[in-house]
Amino acid sequence: MKKYGGSSVIELEPGAVEITIRTANTESFPCIYVEGAVESDETWMADDMSQDWSAVGTNAMFTDAGKTPEIFPFSYEKIYYQQREVLEDGVLFDFGRETFAAAEFFGLKDKAVRVQWGESREEALDREWSVIRFDRQPVDGRLSFEPYAFRYIFVSDKNAEAQAEYEYLPLAYRGSFHCSDEVLNRVWDTAAYTFHLNCREFFLDGIKRDRWVWAADAYQCLFVNRYLFWDQDLERRTLTALGGKDPFKVHINNIMDYSFFWIISLYEYYCTYGDRKFMEQIRPQMEHVMAFCRSRTDRDGFMRGRPGDWIFIDWAPMDKTGAVCAEQILYAKAMECFGKILQVLDGEDRGYLKLAKEVRDAVFAHFYDQQKGVFTDSYESGENRVTRQTNILAYLFLPCTEEQKRDIYTHVILNEKVPQITTPYFKFYENQVHCMEGNTGILEQSIRTYYGSMLETGATTLYEEYDPNMRGTEHYAMYGNPYEKSLCHAWSTSPVYLLGNYRLGVQNTGIAYDTFAVRPDLGGLASFSGTVPVGKGYVSVSMDSGEVRVTSTVPGGILQVFGREISLEPGKEAIVKKESGKKGRTE
Amino acid sequence: MKKYGGSSVIELEPGAVEITIRTANTESFPCIYVEGAVESDETWMADDMSQDWSAVGTNAMFTDAGKTPEIFPFSYEKIYYQQREVLEDGVLFDFGRETFAAAEFFGLKDKAVRVQWGESREEALDREWSVIRFDRQPVDGRLSFEPYAFRYIFVSDKNAEAQAEYEYLPLAYRGSFHCSDEVLNRVWDTAAYTFHLNCREFFLDGIKRDRWVWAADAYQCLFVNRYLFWDQDLERRTLTALGGKDPFKVHINNIMDYSFFWIISLYEYYCTYGDRKFMEQIRPQMEHVMAFCRSRTDRDGFMRGRPGDWIFIDWAPMDKTGAVCAEQILYAKAMECFGKILQVLDGEDRGYLKLAKEVRDAVFAHFYDQQKGVFTDSYESGENRVTRQTNILAYLFLPCTEEQKRDIYTHVILNEKVPQITTPYFKFYENQVHCMEGNTGILEQSIRTYYGSMLETGATTLYEEYDPNMRGTEHYAMYGNPYEKSLCHAWSTSPVYLLGNYRLGVQNTGIAYDTFAVRPDLGGLASFSGTVPVGKGYVSVSMDSGEVRVTSTVPGGILQVFGREISLEPGKEAIVKKESGKKGRTE
Repeated sequence: MKKYGGSSVIELEPGAVEITIRTANTESFPCIYVEGAVESDETWMADDMSQDWSAVGTNAMFTDAGKTPEIFPFSYEKIYYQQREVLEDGVLFDFGRETFAAAEFFGLKDKAVRVQWGESREEALDREWSVIRFDRQPVDGRLSFEPYAFRYIFVSDKNAEAQAEYEYLPLAYRGSFHCSDEVLNRVWDTAAYTFHLNCREFFLDGIKRDRWVWAADAYQCLFVNRYLFWDQDLERRTLTALGGKDPFKVHINNIMDYSFFWIISLYEYYCTYGDRKFMEQIRPQMEHVMAFCRSRTDRDGFMRGRPGDWIFIDWAPMDKTGAVCAEQILYAKAMECFGKILQVLDGEDRGYLKLAKEVRDAVFAHFYDQQKGVFTDSYESGENRVTRQTNILAYLFLPCTEEQKRDIYTHVILNEKVPQITTPYFKFYENQVHCMEGNTGILEQSIRTYYGSMLETGATTLYEEYDPNMRGTEHYAMYGNPYEKSLCHAWSTSPVYLLGNYRLGVQNTGIAYDTFAVRPDLGGLASFSGTVPVGKGYVSVSMDSGEVRVTSTVPGGILQVFGREISLEPGKEAIVKKESGKKGRTE
Repeated sequence: MKKYGGSSVIELEPGAVEITIRTANTESFPCIYVEGAVESDETWMADDMSQDWSAVGTNAMFTDAGKTPEIFPFSYEKIYYQQREVLEDGVLFDFGRETFAAAEFFGLKDKAVRVQWGESREEALDREWSVIRFDRQPVDGRLSFEPYAFRYIFVSDKNAEAQAEYEYLPLAYRGSFHCSDEVLNRVWDTAAYTFHLNCREFFLDGIKRDRWVWAADAYQCLFVNRYLFWDQDLERRTLTALGGKDPFKVHINNIMDYSFFWIISLYEYYCTYGDRKFMEQIRPQMEHVMAFCRSRTDRDGFMRGRPGDWIFIDWAPMDKTGAVCAEQILYAKAMECFGKILQVLDGEDRGYLKLAKEVRDAVFAHFYDQQKGVFTDSYESGENRVTRQTNILAYLFLPCTEEQKRDIYTHVILNEKVPQITTPYFKFYENQVHCMEGNTGILEQSIRTYYGSMLETGATTLYEEYDPNMRGTEHYAMYGNPYEKSLCHAWSTSPVYLLGNYRLGVQNTGIAYDTFAVRPDLGGLASFSGTVPVGKGYVSVSMDSGEVRVTSTVPGGILQVFGREISLEPGKEAIVKKESGKKGRTE
């Protein structure tokens, strides 16, 4: 064994050679770069001196010595304001739409300058409440800042000039959607831009606030991503970050449902990309999360909140007494997903599928009201409260019969007496149910009334929460602060997914789209056309009331439309016409 | 519940108020400072959102808002070189003795300057091998550097002038020792200074290299500290750092014996300070270390090295086949210490004392040679090798009978055929055995021949390792580098402890010195006097062949000398004279 110091040239002698490199980094990732006859690549193994050797982490973003993983390689682009408004006490710059950029000011003459950022004009002008604001002393008439989220910036020096540098991930827009309804087109475009701003090191919840990764927000991002960017690495980075590191002492994001959504997301990820290697890499974290959950299961098999657990589900009045129905539904689903992942990795599920079934059976036994055909939030309070949230999750994550689904749909979802969903987060799930029930016009109606009216308030990105009954600056307030609401929030971008999945209709039916269906559905539209990425290729779909045209560049697709089923041949356009009163046919 | 932003003034309303503060710090310690009617102090509780509430960490060094725990508050003092020697290719500064200081150079005229640090003159002058060296471009003729360990600095610019700032912990020298032998006095002074340089955030092993905390080095530092500085917080900081954080996946410092020494050190700490609160704080780490060890115990109750474990014991040829005797001795001692700590905390030892006894019994059964009266390193190799190391640890950490001890002492320690100890690390333990056997002149002889001759090579601090047979720069080489040896190493400072404990004779016999013995012993000396810190007070002892004088400022002491036993009254000097042929008497 020979020992070498840092940045050494190591001459390899003939024969088998074992190279071990010790590296330490107290600030960031310990990493190495080896070039020569032997190169650092994904075949190297790493351990933390505990002899738990595992594959090193690698990433396509870091392929030469000049790029350190300590600096995430964003792209940058100069952007300019669209309007410069001189006010009594300073200048207001309007950059035309929400952005995330490092601002620089020059030509300053005052000794001390106040700068206020705003997602809204009102926020930028608010001396007291604007969330991001600084008092600074210019040097040579200049001031520059870290990147922040904003549309407007107010500077107290009337001589101020400004420019900014947009910081972003250079993602290819591989999915597209255009339809006969201009409002929906604007919503789709705005959703895509909103989502892009939140796609960074990970899927962020919002670009101004929290700039954090939350498991259930991320779960929804997976779906939007697949119909827009198909960025597998971003999904992997997000799921890795959420898994955290040992010891696992609290639920992911401190929220019980979010632990479950993380496991469910991992199986979703596996189904989409067939990435067995990542499942193996993330396995220790999965094992710890599941072991943690099972260690907190009560004797009846249910998970009740312990001190410090946040039982979230949704921002809505729900009955959260004792064992909460929605949590058990997700718990059972998480165990089912974990069991299926274990089957992939080890060929057997270690009893998790049975455990999942036991919890599901117990959910039906305790929470399902046979008479009314609905699920109640809690059986321990005696209140028998019925909410959309619990029944939507039951619809999506329990193996309900068609009749049970129909009951939920008519008795809860279409029942105006059951309080409405108010968060875009749960609108995602509710609209999924609408689409799965085939009540086709409701999706468009929902997008129009909810998102369409949001755009009318001047939104250039989609808000975290929105109540059409509010007026003016009421839209910006949250958590007791007039501008605390995030005006650019990832969980509001579900139209990209919903229109791609339920209108263009491209749906994975196997593992990694080895088989997939294309089920175009006009819904409440006169016509649409668009593209859905699938692996390295794509599927393009256009439809109007008389005809559907589909081209797939990848094998495995089956077109199902107008009661017909046609195998798609890669590269060849399939055209199916609807004949009035008859089934469609291929040309 | 009311929410407040950062650096808020919170007005307390009448009645009971609960204040919760969330704080995050990705770089260093999350910490808070609260002033007002309620203040941040040790009564506050903290948790990491896992509802594992425990007492906050506090430290007497950080008592106002201006002092952040992110910056360790060292003291600083300007120091100047003693000699400036102009050479052909630059200037050599000699600071007179080893130090740790930030150097600054001025008056520089060259564009590019080479600076080389050296613990020895040869190292500073070695362009290729000096361990700390930089090529820098002066700004305005000046260059300044982070603190490093050195005595000499070479600067390639002949115009160079220099000064430096000594960085140190301002420790009070509470222990002292002076005797009739000037060599021993110089060794004591040099050991004290060596130790001081290594007392920083933690007990470091060496001030140039590794500048790291190692469990068995630290174990020895505890003893030196108690006879010199009595800095309880430094011990606590060191033991805390060694405990690491979850998950516990490898032995402390990767060394099996070091995990054991850490547990043994914690019980040593408890006995010295009676600090039950710290035992409670460090309990989770202790539990994890013991659980880790027990999970790796083989079916016969022994701990064998697993891949990645370092079986150290000492730098010496030993038989480390299979179960190593020395490791089992320390394992049994660690379980005994842990059991005793559990008794203090919970009133019962959870079976650890019984487990310890089982391992001890197995050690006697497998490793003890009844015929020869010695312990062998390994019983699995069939080699039956006998080393000082194994027998010294058996003497110190097993409950050997007086006869067994005597056998070890005569058959191993006094047996010149058994290879000698070569590290100051194990000299500590060997000299303990000499002193406990009462073979009184050997300690002085050992210090004189080993440390005395080290000083003759020009040492101003004590070396990591020393072989009197080496010459010149041979003394500085280690690990294949001519200057890699640490010339200022904590584990070489044991004379401070040995002279305090076995000559001045102040020994804790209870918990936190609630009872203690003073057993002065002239050993090979004509006379000595000195002071030993005990809690907030001290015990001073002076002795010559005719008389002993002892003053203790604290209660609980018993003087045992000349076959007499006298209770010490705080503040009152006890004088015992030796009468020739008679027992001593009090005046």
